[in-house]
Formats: sequence, structure tokens, C-alpha cells
Amino acid sequence: MPGQVDRPVDQTGLRRLNLSRVLRTLRSDGPQSRALLARRTGLNKATTSSLVAELEQRRLVQLGAVVAGAVGRPSQPVELRGRAVCGIGLEINVNYAAVAVLDLTDQILFSKRVSLDVVALGQVAAIDLLADLATEAIGAMRDEGSWVAGVTAAVPGLVDAENGIVRHAPNLRWREASVAERLAGRLDLARESISVDNDANLSALAEHAFGVAAGASDLLYLTGEVGVGGGVIADGRLVRGATGFTGEVGHMPLNPSPADCGCGRKGCWETQVGLAALLRAVADPGDEVHDSARDLEQRLRVIASRAADGEPRTRTALAEIGSALGVGASILVNVLNPTAVVLGGYFALLGEWLAEPARRELTGRVMASGSCRLVLSDLGFTAAVRGGAHAALDRVVADPSIAPTEVPHLGGIA
Amino acid sequence: MPGQVDRPVDQTGLRRLNLSRVLRTLRSDGPQSRALLARRTGLNKATTSSLVAELEQRRLVQLGAVVAGAVGRPSQPVELRGRAVCGIGLEINVNYAAVAVLDLTDQILFSKRVSLDVVALGQVAAIDLLADLATEAIGAMRDEGSWVAGVTAAVPGLVDAENGIVRHAPNLRWREASVAERLAGRLDLARESISVDNDANLSALAEHAFGVAAGASDLLYLTGEVGVGGGVIADGRLVRGATGFTGEVGHMPLNPSPADCGCGRKGCWETQVGLAALLRAVADPGDEVHDSARDLEQRLRVIASRAADGEPRTRTALAEIGSALGVGASILVNVLNPTAVVLGGYFALLGEWLAEPARRELTGRVMASGSCRLVLSDLGFTAAVRGGAHAALDRVVADPSIAPTEVPHLGGIA
Repeated sequence: MPGQVDRPVDQTGLRRLNLSRVLRTLRSDGPQSRALLARRTGLNKATTSSLVAELEQRRLVQLGAVVAGAVGRPSQPVELRGRAVCGIGLEINVNYAAVAVLDLTDQILFSKRVSLDVVALGQVAAIDLLADLATEAIGAMRDEGSWVAGVTAAVPGLVDAENGIVRHAPNLRWREASVAERLAGRLDLARESISVDNDANLSALAEHAFGVAAGASDLLYLTGEVGVGGGVIADGRLVRGATGFTGEVGHMPLNPSPADCGCGRKGCWETQVGLAALLRAVADPGDEVHDSARDLEQRLRVIASRAADGEPRTRTALAEIGSALGVGASILVNVLNPTAVVLGGYFALLGEWLAEPARRELTGRVMASGSCRLVLSDLGFTAAVRGGAHAALDRVVADPSIAPTEVPHLGGIA
Repeated sequence: MPGQVDRPVDQTGLRRLNLSRVLRTLRSDGPQSRALLARRTGLNKATTSSLVAELEQRRLVQLGAVVAGAVGRPSQPVELRGRAVCGIGLEINVNYAAVAVLDLTDQILFSKRVSLDVVALGQVAAIDLLADLATEAIGAMRDEGSWVAGVTAAVPGLVDAENGIVRHAPNLRWREASVAERLAGRLDLARESISVDNDANLSALAEHAFGVAAGASDLLYLTGEVGVGGGVIADGRLVRGATGFTGEVGHMPLNPSPADCGCGRKGCWETQVGLAALLRAVADPGDEVHDSARDLEQRLRVIASRAADGEPRTRTALAEIGSALGVGASILVNVLNPTAVVLGGYFALLGEWLAEPARRELTGRVMASGSCRLVLSDLGFTAAVRGGAHAALDRVVADPSIAPTEVPHLGGIA
């Protein structure tokens, strides 16, 4: 098992590991005194103080307001310094491109979303548009003196994350797109700070970091869009698979009616629970919900309002889709045994009517039932882009020594 | 995300980590010179030599035969010392109990298997029988001066590995069985050296460590027995899930004929590809393959010989089961993206007829096809018990400082 053995640890490496340990503890557990930080990291107090001092110098942490303790001296908690360091998330999907910038505390510093027809635009022009969005965000951040730790782009498809290449994104009609390399060529950032990942993977990371099931060690994210995507967190880590192609859940052969799937087969789960199946089930062609010129969220709100009014066809369709969602989800829960299944995309927006029938199927079908809850994402369609920004920050959290010790020259340092 | 932060590293911890790193490198990459070991672990030569000396003193490694180099001085490779340290695997299944002892190089030092009716025996008596098998193995090892690092028992069911409790093993009719505690009470070993795990999990570990797909970072193990079990290795680590209940793959609702399943539902994958489905498909009641008094492997060999003779009913049944196996496996491959699917249990014994139809389905259904191969286990029905012994050795590999520095008194030290 080569690759199983950790990286070597020497004195410099040990310091780096410990800097990272302090930063991760603050990121996961929030502001705390140096004494508590020392206890939680297992490091001694002198080392902890020295590490905090270095992280302060690198503008990653700051001392908060003095808190009077119940006993003893008042303490000054150490907290993450928000705006001095940021990560940028990009997203490209069938109908839009987006950017979001998060600070170390996962607060949004900047965001923008543009509607467009990505297929018509073509692969190269679409990547350049992502570069333009990133350039705008980087400029805005540098004007504020914020250091950009990295950029991560979310793409709905099979992504070779190691090499930054989108191997195949069928709904975008992309093949072998060298996204990271092209972005690096157009951005004032080092190549190693730019990465690309599958959108469901990044959404799962966002849910794990700051969503409704934040902190769940084992989490399954399912998103309903044109396709149905899945992201898997196991034991606190994203499961990427051998070639980065996990979570392709949309093509489980579960539909008893042999409906044609975009993949060329019949009866895939997507043909029961994907967006096209939803729209077909709730309304005849010509109905406003089929008008692809209108924003998807608006159309979904029309469906939600019909369901709220008790419109029978809508209610029946959502109940059937909810059941089919539960049948598929139960397979994944039996395989992965997560604490939480988080529903995203349209599944969340129509969750009020989908969740109950889905839960019934889960209860009846999961072997270790009772150990898993089904919850609705509150990140809407921003999960992937925010997950990307969070992932971009992981670089500096893993190795805080890459952060500059001085305020970067405005507009200068990459 | 509490729990995400690594254990603290101080000087003693660093030494322990580095001892472990050297031992793991030897375990994964085989005998090698100290110079190569230093390069591979990233440690300097003086540190490496000092670590090797301590591992020698703890009887975990030894110096091998001198090898003349092409250039420079002849070198004496460092290698794992086999028999001085061992791990014990136990297994209980519907029709048998077994024990195997492996040394650090995964060679079998001792093994025994007894046929019995576990359901008739009852939960407590069955665990005591496992204790007897372990006691026999421990005695034999101590007579040889071998130090027992630990014991791991394999059970087909939902196992709470953290607490050593089998929550539910339907085919054994076990519920809430405190296996580790009861074994500890009857064995001359410390409680913390005794663990329990799901049999498919341990088989997956065995395949990953020394099976036909050894070293695959992402591996899916599927075993055909009374039930159909799965074990998942992702990024070199066993996926356990939130409560340890992963790999329950047998109840995917895939069978178009609504056959009754032991779980109380209809149409589960097990009803297509489990052992009962195989026997029903290949022969009418009364046929010798249905004689449960006969050893299962013998009955499977009868089926294999009929298939080899071209007997039409057998051939048709195996082709259909192989296809159904491929359909189910393709779901799991799309979710997990492993490098290899390893077939164990009866799937391996009849693999000559099952693998091709299964591969056809995989090729047609896997989104990232070409990245995954389907292979037959060569560990037969010993995968779980050998995986258990290997896992028991992980304890000393993770922390070599627990190994005694002197030969234990015969029969004495736990």
C-alpha cells in the first residue's frame, strides 16, 4: 500500500502541523482562550502562545474582546481573523456561472451570478467567463487588502481534481477541459492555488462545514437538478474514489417504467426524480413551469405555491417523486451509513412535499434505521460555489505558513 | 467539526509516529536497505537507524541476508520479523467457526475451522466456542515465544466495532451480543487488544492487504453467501459509516420478480444473487446441492462441474445471476468509483461463469467505465478470518512501542 504512509515529520513539519492544528481547532470550535486551545490541541501553553503569535502575524487570527471569567483573570479569546484572508469559489452550470468569496469564518465577502446558456457559449469561452468573474472578485478583495488563498471551480461532471481537468460534463457538453490550467493562465495567481472539483463534492463539503448537518462525520448530499448528483463525506473526509468520479447516483436502474435517460439507457433514477421528470409530472407542455427562459427558482416557486394550494396533480407528483427519492436514498444509506442525508437543489426547495414520503421509504428500507436523518439544505443553489470557496481556504488551513506576514501590496501579490 | 483535528504531537508522540512509519513502510513495500527506508519515510539516516534499532529490540524487524550492490558497499536489508509477533482472527458464521493466526508478514502460523450449527448452539455458547479456539491459538503461539498483539472476531451482521458489540446478526439470530467483553473475560489478553468487526469489512481489509487487488486505494469487496455483504475501502481506509453499519448492499430493490427476502421485503438484490437464489435456480428441491448437511464448498464444486460440462440449466442460471450481479455492482461502482471490485464467497468459486456477464453490465452502466476492474478473490472463505488477524496486528503497527522488548515468558504475558 504505497501512499498509505503519512508525510514525514521533522521539526519544521511539526511546527507547520501544529500551526494547522490550532487554526483547525478555531475553525471547528470557534473563539476560545489560549488555555482552552492548549487543552483541546493537546499542546502545552507556551507552544500554543507561540503558535497563536505566528498566526496573528500572518493575519489569520486575532484577539477578541476581553471576557470576564467566573473565576480568575479575565481572558481574551483567540478568534479567526475574517477578512484578511479569503477563498474564491467559482461555479459553472447549464444556465449560469457564479462566484463567491468567503473569509476564514465562512462569511460571504463577495458574490455574483450571471445567467447564460453555457452550451451555446462553448467550453473555452465559458472557462474565460469564469476567469473574468474570478478576476473581478480578486480585484475587489485586493482593494480591501485581503490575501487570496486560492480558487476552486465547481463543475457538474466527471472531474480529475488532481490535474484540474474536467474529463466529461455531459450536460455542459464538455470533454477534456483543462480548466485549472486555463484559469491559471488568465489569473494573477499561482497554478497550485487553483483547483477544480465536482459540484456535488463541493456542495457536500459546504454542508459538512456550515450547512444544516454541519459537523456530521458521515454525510450524504443529494442534489436535484437536470441530473441527480451525490457527494459523500465519510469519517469527516470527502470520498473521491480512485479517479475522482464518486457520487454518480443518477443512473441507478430503479424506474419501473422504462423512461429514456440522457445517458442513453432506460429506467435510470434520474428519469424518476431529476428535474425533467418533475416538470413533466406536474404540468403539461406549454405550462409556465416548462418555460426555460424563466429563472428555475421562480418556476419551482410556482410549483411550490400550487402544492401549498393543494392542487391534486402537483401533490400526487411530488408524493411519487418523494417516494422514489426515498427508495434510491435508502440504497445509498445502506451502503454508506451516514448520520444525515442532506437534500439540495430542487429537492430542498420542494422539500416540504418531498421529505415525508422519502422518510417513509427510508424508515422501511434502511437496515440500521434510526441512525440517519433526512434534512433539507438551506444553502439553496449556492452550496457548490460556497463549498468551492471553503475548499480554496483549506490550502492555508492545512499549511498556515503560506500566508504572508505583511499586508500584500494592493493588487500585487498572488 | 470536532474530532477532525489530529491527536497532538509531542516528542514522545513523534517517536511513536516515526516508529510506526518505518514499520508501515516495511509492511507495504517489503525488505529494503536503511538508506532506502530513510528516503521513503523522509526521515534522516541517523533517525532511521535509531528507529530500526528499537524495532529490532522489540522483535518487530530483523536484518536480512547481505546483498551485494551494483555500486558501493554491500547492504543488509531491513525486513519484518515474522513469527515473533502475531495477530489472531476469529470468525463465526452460520455453519462454522474458525481461527487463523498471521505473523507480521501475513503468513499463516496457525488455523483451524470447525463445522457447527451456530443458530442451534445459541449466542453465548457460540462466543465461548470462539474463546476456546482463541485460547488454543494463543497457547500454540506462546509455546513458540510469539507475542500476541491482539484478537479480532468477524461476525456477519451489524457490528458496533467501537464497543465490541454485535447489534444484530439476523442469519445467526444474534442481538446485542457483547462479544469483545465476553472474549476478554475468558482470554488471557487485555480488553483493549480484543475487537469485533463485520465480516465483509474484515474481508475487504484482507483483500486490500494481501489479496488479488492488494494496494488498490479504492476497493469494493462483494461476498456471496446466505446474505450478500459489501466492504468498502476508500483512499486506503475502511469506510465504517456513522455507526459502523456500511456495506449493507443485499437489500437494494433490484429484482423485477417480487421474491420474498429474509428481511421481510420483496425484490431485494439478495433474492437474485444470494446463495439461496443460486441453489434454487440451478436445481430442483431434492438435488444434492440442496443438502445442507453437506459442506457448502463441496456443493458449489458440484455446480461448477455441471457448468464445466455445459449443463444448460446451470449455465443459464449462472449467466442470469452474473448479469444481476453486474447490475447491482454497477450502482456501487458509480457511487464509490473503486479501482477494483473483488468478488468473494461463492461469487469467486463460480467466478468463471459469473464474471463475464457481470463485466458486460459494468461496462454498459458505469459512468467512468474503464477505471474499474472486476476480479475474483483467491482467499476463498478465509478472507474474513485472515482480515481479522491482519487487523489485530494493526494495533502494534500503529504503535510499535507496545511490543515487549524481551521474549515473553512462555505462556505468561498478555
